[in-house]
Amino acid sequence: MKTEGCNKFVHLQPQNNNTMSLLTVGTVAFDTIETPYGKAERVVGGACTYISWAASYFTDKINLVSIVGDDFPQEEIKALHQRGVNTDGLEIVEGKKSFFWAGKYHDNMNQRDTITTDLNVLADFDPQLPNSYKESEFLMLGNLTPEIQLQVLNQMKTRPKLVVMDTMNFWMDIALDALHKVISRVDVITINDEEARQLSGEHALVTAAEKIHQMGPKIVIIKKGEHGALLFNEGRIFSAPALPLARVFDPTGAGDTFAGGFIGFLAGQDDLSFDNLKRAIIYGSTMASFCVEEFSIEKLKNLTEQEIHNRAEKFIEISRVSL
Amino acid sequence: MKTEGCNKFVHLQPQNNNTMSLLTVGTVAFDTIETPYGKAERVVGGACTYISWAASYFTDKINLVSIVGDDFPQEEIKALHQRGVNTDGLEIVEGKKSFFWAGKYHDNMNQRDTITTDLNVLADFDPQLPNSYKESEFLMLGNLTPEIQLQVLNQMKTRPKLVVMDTMNFWMDIALDALHKVISRVDVITINDEEARQLSGEHALVTAAEKIHQMGPKIVIIKKGEHGALLFNEGRIFSAPALPLARVFDPTGAGDTFAGGFIGFLAGQDDLSFDNLKRAIIYGSTMASFCVEEFSIEKLKNLTEQEIHNRAEKFIEISRVSL
Repeated sequence: MKTEGCNKFVHLQPQNNNTMSLLTVGTVAFDTIETPYGKAERVVGGACTYISWAASYFTDKINLVSIVGDDFPQEEIKALHQRGVNTDGLEIVEGKKSFFWAGKYHDNMNQRDTITTDLNVLADFDPQLPNSYKESEFLMLGNLTPEIQLQVLNQMKTRPKLVVMDTMNFWMDIALDALHKVISRVDVITINDEEARQLSGEHALVTAAEKIHQMGPKIVIIKKGEHGALLFNEGRIFSAPALPLARVFDPTGAGDTFAGGFIGFLAGQDDLSFDNLKRAIIYGSTMASFCVEEFSIEKLKNLTEQEIHNRAEKFIEISRVSL
Repeated sequence: MKTEGCNKFVHLQPQNNNTMSLLTVGTVAFDTIETPYGKAERVVGGACTYISWAASYFTDKINLVSIVGDDFPQEEIKALHQRGVNTDGLEIVEGKKSFFWAGKYHDNMNQRDTITTDLNVLADFDPQLPNSYKESEFLMLGNLTPEIQLQVLNQMKTRPKLVVMDTMNFWMDIALDALHKVISRVDVITINDEEARQLSGEHALVTAAEKIHQMGPKIVIIKKGEHGALLFNEGRIFSAPALPLARVFDPTGAGDTFAGGFIGFLAGQDDLSFDNLKRAIIYGSTMASFCVEEFSIEKLKNLTEQEIHNRAEKFIEISRVSL
């Protein structure tokens, strides 16, 4: 993670063999999205898609588990392959359709309405990990039913070094017990501020994080969208800034991308010190800041390591201060 | 601004004579406040009160301009005196009452309802600066009618080195033209995020800040409450964290206290570099974080320089990160 002078080539992926294998699970899907800036019809989406693309800039040992129908484009799967993502665990169901979500954002971009949710293949998803996946060293449980997150956890032969979960209020509303089972078994939870309040019953985020620590995760990350993120770990706090952007084109997938950048960076480094967790938050935020600039994964597909590094430096620059 | 080792005595006020004189204008008033934690009846409040108390930890050359009725306690005026605040400009109107505001906060503490606003002496406030005030080097126009802010500006013999204004949506709604006149003549505006959006008509804060720059102020500070603050100055951005607090007891006066700490620190230092503006934001945020811990100015009355310095260090600590 060194810049050898200004604009020299930057390696985000470590050049040694310390990279940890990373298992990612979540949806691979189609989205139809309407924002104040435009509309995108049936574009590629899904938590696992965003996670894997974001992580792929930091590690090339990614094992993907998900499910799609036969409507999902082969070239999208091939593109993941080319980024070093193993898709042996991507089940393709003939004669069925991929998960589909349609949503419309309000003018302020902070709220959205779901127009359509067609579970399709997701309704019967019963993930079976390929044997080669079962000793993955890092595990990212993307936003999905807690039951499926549990099934994946249960199929691991060895307990991963780091398990990160992402979730959302929807599962708190309809599957709280199962959600608590997952939460009790993970190291890191990423959750937004309103969800942290809902899950903990506490308004103050520092108290909410304490309550969530008591549910299991030693590391609690509260995502605050345009206000950045908070990292809580063993009494220490890190407040990460967000980059003030002139235009958020489409926020879809920003949280997944954040999580993917976060765990991808850690898997690439195999260093779970607090200082490195902070760096991982910055890289996660960096990837999310790219994600929102275009629809779908368009922006995430064509980044250079230099661009990523330069933007991460901007996060550092805008928060640098000393007394 | 040095810590001579851990917990050694800290001087927030410079030990040389470079301190700039600071003129503060705003309300001195009574508030009745209800929060989820309790109720305070007719306690001391007002923008100028909070500003002056916060600034008094950083400079002892404060000239206060405001108005009260004969119901305002002498001991409160004496307490300001003892902090080095010149109150020659505090008009006391016999037979009339001080400005009074009553409000009630919602459970989330981010919203409040105004129950009562009794202008009383404020209705006829026609500020007359004592001659000794007219060459004050720094000027803080606290939240007040834009007309009064203008009157104070117009009475200055020399243009201050730095003019900071605070305002609120109320004046945008009822006195936008006068507000624009003030804005066009100040160096710094402090404003919250929703107000920045209202004033500029822009949702993205970075664009909002650009529009507000075009109205006059070279320095735009957007206060985001529990999410910290953003500083915009000549293309540079600083994102200041907020300290995640377990309990916000009463947010009243936090914005004024922020502004007071900000300009007080700058007046004490007479250094308007971007690095020092960032420090001023941290000290302003620090003072605000104390303010919200108790009703009224109770907490602000009894701080030590060491406490202030230590808390400012916490802001630095939670935002420190390198790649």
